Amino acid sequence: MKSGRGRIRRRGRAPKGPIIINGLKREIPPYEMMNEEGLDLIEEKTEEILQEVGVEFRGDDEALKIWKDAGADVKGCRVRFDKGHVRSLVKTAPSTFVMHGRNPRRSVLVGDDNVVFCPAYGSPFVSDLDKGRRYGTIRHFQNLIKLAYMSPWIHHSGGTVCEPVDLPVNKRHLDMVHAHMKYSDMPFMGSVTSRDRALDSIEMARILFGEEFVNQNCVISGNINMNSPLVYDGAMSGALRAYAEANQCPVVVPFVLSGATGPVTIAAAIAQSLAEVMVGVALGQVIRPGSPAIFGNFITTVNLRAGSPTFGTAESVAASYVVGQLARRFNIPLRCSGGFTSSPCVDAHSTNESVNSLNAAVLCGSHFVLHAAGWMESALTVSYEKFVIDADYLGSLHKFVKGVSVAKEQFTTESFLEAGFGGHFFGCGHTLEHYQDAFYESELFTTPAYEQWEEEGGADIAKRANAKWKAMLQEYEEPALDPAINEELQAFMHRRKNEMPDIWH
Amino acid sequence: MKSGRGRIRRRGRAPKGPIIINGLKREIPPYEMMNEEGLDLIEEKTEEILQEVGVEFRGDDEALKIWKDAGADVKGCRVRFDKGHVRSLVKTAPSTFVMHGRNPRRSVLVGDDNVVFCPAYGSPFVSDLDKGRRYGTIRHFQNLIKLAYMSPWIHHSGGTVCEPVDLPVNKRHLDMVHAHMKYSDMPFMGSVTSRDRALDSIEMARILFGEEFVNQNCVISGNINMNSPLVYDGAMSGALRAYAEANQCPVVVPFVLSGATGPVTIAAAIAQSLAEVMVGVALGQVIRPGSPAIFGNFITTVNLRAGSPTFGTAESVAASYVVGQLARRFNIPLRCSGGFTSSPCVDAHSTNESVNSLNAAVLCGSHFVLHAAGWMESALTVSYEKFVIDADYLGSLHKFVKGVSVAKEQFTTESFLEAGFGGHFFGCGHTLEHYQDAFYESELFTTPAYEQWEEEGGADIAKRANAKWKAMLQEYEEPALDPAINEELQAFMHRRKNEMPDIWH
Repeated sequence: MKSGRGRIRRRGRAPKGPIIINGLKREIPPYEMMNEEGLDLIEEKTEEILQEVGVEFRGDDEALKIWKDAGADVKGCRVRFDKGHVRSLVKTAPSTFVMHGRNPRRSVLVGDDNVVFCPAYGSPFVSDLDKGRRYGTIRHFQNLIKLAYMSPWIHHSGGTVCEPVDLPVNKRHLDMVHAHMKYSDMPFMGSVTSRDRALDSIEMARILFGEEFVNQNCVISGNINMNSPLVYDGAMSGALRAYAEANQCPVVVPFVLSGATGPVTIAAAIAQSLAEVMVGVALGQVIRPGSPAIFGNFITTVNLRAGSPTFGTAESVAASYVVGQLARRFNIPLRCSGGFTSSPCVDAHSTNESVNSLNAAVLCGSHFVLHAAGWMESALTVSYEKFVIDADYLGSLHKFVKGVSVAKEQFTTESFLEAGFGGHFFGCGHTLEHYQDAFYESELFTTPAYEQWEEEGGADIAKRANAKWKAMLQEYEEPALDPAINEELQAFMHRRKNEMPDIWH
Repeated sequence: MKSGRGRIRRRGRAPKGPIIINGLKREIPPYEMMNEEGLDLIEEKTEEILQEVGVEFRGDDEALKIWKDAGADVKGCRVRFDKGHVRSLVKTAPSTFVMHGRNPRRSVLVGDDNVVFCPAYGSPFVSDLDKGRRYGTIRHFQNLIKLAYMSPWIHHSGGTVCEPVDLPVNKRHLDMVHAHMKYSDMPFMGSVTSRDRALDSIEMARILFGEEFVNQNCVISGNINMNSPLVYDGAMSGALRAYAEANQCPVVVPFVLSGATGPVTIAAAIAQSLAEVMVGVALGQVIRPGSPAIFGNFITTVNLRAGSPTFGTAESVAASYVVGQLARRFNIPLRCSGGFTSSPCVDAHSTNESVNSLNAAVLCGSHFVLHAAGWMESALTVSYEKFVIDADYLGSLHKFVKGVSVAKEQFTTESFLEAGFGGHFFGCGHTLEHYQDAFYESELFTTPAYEQWEEEGGADIAKRANAKWKAMLQEYEEPALDPAINEELQAFMHRRKNEMPDIWH
């Protein structure tokens, strides 16, 4: 099976020209919610979990061998760590690195005060106001990539922007990676659902970027979820290894539903999450010290009556702030939150949770925000309307993180005399000088007079969003891709598809 | 006219029994967005405005006389202040005080880490899903008081919860104050639309609480808006004086629309707002040093294309954080933001702005949050549905401000072994110990399975909110009020109404 990969001639090209780092540059400090004593205590408890409980690696003998060689206490598939061991291993992870797009002007800096917004990930369904909710397809997948590509506020093409269930489970990763390469020129994520699919994804990246460039630079990343509590299954740890071996970026993300897949108290859930993510990042560092990694956080709550997950809640937002503080102690780029909601539709409920989790992501100091646009119904659905509403709000966040400038020209005493007591500033010289950059102007938060709004049908924002995404898809223009490279990509996909029977479930 | 007030025999009663301070106790630090140098610079610019531009007091000779006597530079109605003068005057304002409810268990502490949530204020319209938007009436006014009274997350009855336009302009304040006294037992606000109406409001408070108690304690407050930029009209300054003379609380709030009633740059708008509020608070302190006052903030943006106000925007949220930092320097309780929106309906737009401004209010360190529930359409409308949605979210904020506890019992290493690797925590001993207080449970953010939700009509949260407020009004029970006191109140209202012709505009 692997033989199919090696035969490709790679004429892929390193991105040419000056690299312009895209993303959002935070100029305000993160919010420090917890005091240092509290953070120390959580770290202590994390060490206790690593030492006394440990983590299981199931179905991945290679990972177990790596841990044994690294000096961990391996019994069966259970791996325990002496105090400070994992912490010492993650130290080689870089605090910042560049994720390259095939368009060098769309490369992103991960780390420092930079924030990268990516679309939602992993929903089996899509929805829009016209046809409601239905299964995702490769066509929808492509549409969502196009919308992300066109938004000035999204910096990364994402990964499984929806699940293209019209394609075989074992082959769709090829079409997904190809769609990111063809319909966008931003960085993107590859497959993680098995080690082989991860290897295919990386191989396609080599075709696009050239083998040597990929060996030296991060061009693809993989979203590695664990089976919380405290289990890495072989598919995920195998994929993690594939990315680390290739010097590409595993985004290591526990999935801690406090009360279900983690303790019901947030402090303990954070300690668990920290243990899980440290082990994943450490595995990558043992395999290839200095390879890029992202420190993930996904702690949310459950409705304890129904057992269903809840998002953007008070407790999960608080968790993000604390995790942000902890991640800064490790000095590894942080992935946190996104525009989450459990609401089945675009309404006052969905936005509440979505805004709360997005805001927490930005103020807690995240560097990489997956699910920043489109997420709906506890990740079961990606909504076209919510996608553009969220993206519009990401624009507002770009403004927010600049804070309040106190540069000299921001102040004006004379314009008070110019406006006059009780007067207005519309025509003042100071206003005319500054109005263009003064405020973020939302495209969707319109404020017509009530009578006009009512006369025009009394539409809520979802209807305006519906018109917006359709217009965007109509205006979409594909970024040029070298036809020879595209041919190579297709040849590779063709060969790999022929090597496997279709699997549908 | 004033003679009518003095003749009343006041059998009002001081609230009996232990005073239990209601409100939200913040256990997390405020967010410090700006560095000290930036804050210093804004304060400098504020002093410059006070010295070089000043503030006009129009139609209030008494206020001008007070300023002259206090040593300010008064020319016509323009008042200018030497550097540091106003700052020295506001020092006597208390950093904390109690606003008493007639039910001592509903009294609230204003200041410290306490946050008081009040309903929306001042809308001429009300709306609900059944009948849409129409003018407010005293019946709606009473309904909104009842909803606030019943919410466990609202601590104060508010003031003009809607404008009862079915009553004469010059008499409705009597019915409004009476409704607060009768249908709720929480603290409330009185009239500010003229000095006489403020005096009537305070007089009614004396009937309810007893003259001596009112003289010594804060039982009523008045929301004093200026005519930004830099004007106090006589109605407002007259009302401010009335509250301060009576040892009651003016809530001094500029109305700065950056770009319209203030400079288009946020730093300059903050400097203006600070100048305006300092002068108002200082006036109260000159009149009665040590009387309570609230330092208000209302800085928002405008859509510069349409000239209409916009709310919960990136820039206005940032302004709140900076104003919070400045207010802490003055050590006077802060009023800030609320659940603002310009949206005409309950949708994903309204919640975005509303949540952003409410969150900023809490994290910037506000002590008194007016407009915390119901505000819609740039304050033109108060929505029944939004009222209960906002109130439900206030519950979540009560949880959020507790932060993440790291108390010993919050941690658990043994429950990981109990749940097992990859297992779940639903039945763990640790979960059973903690689940009841673990998460805020929203009454409105339901998360049924999609199929069930669709089958039940696919309702968005506004429809659930519609059912909720109706159920609340049906369950409402009036808190007992001494009939003799109520009689006195009505006699006072009757007399005052007879002393004036009806004025309708």
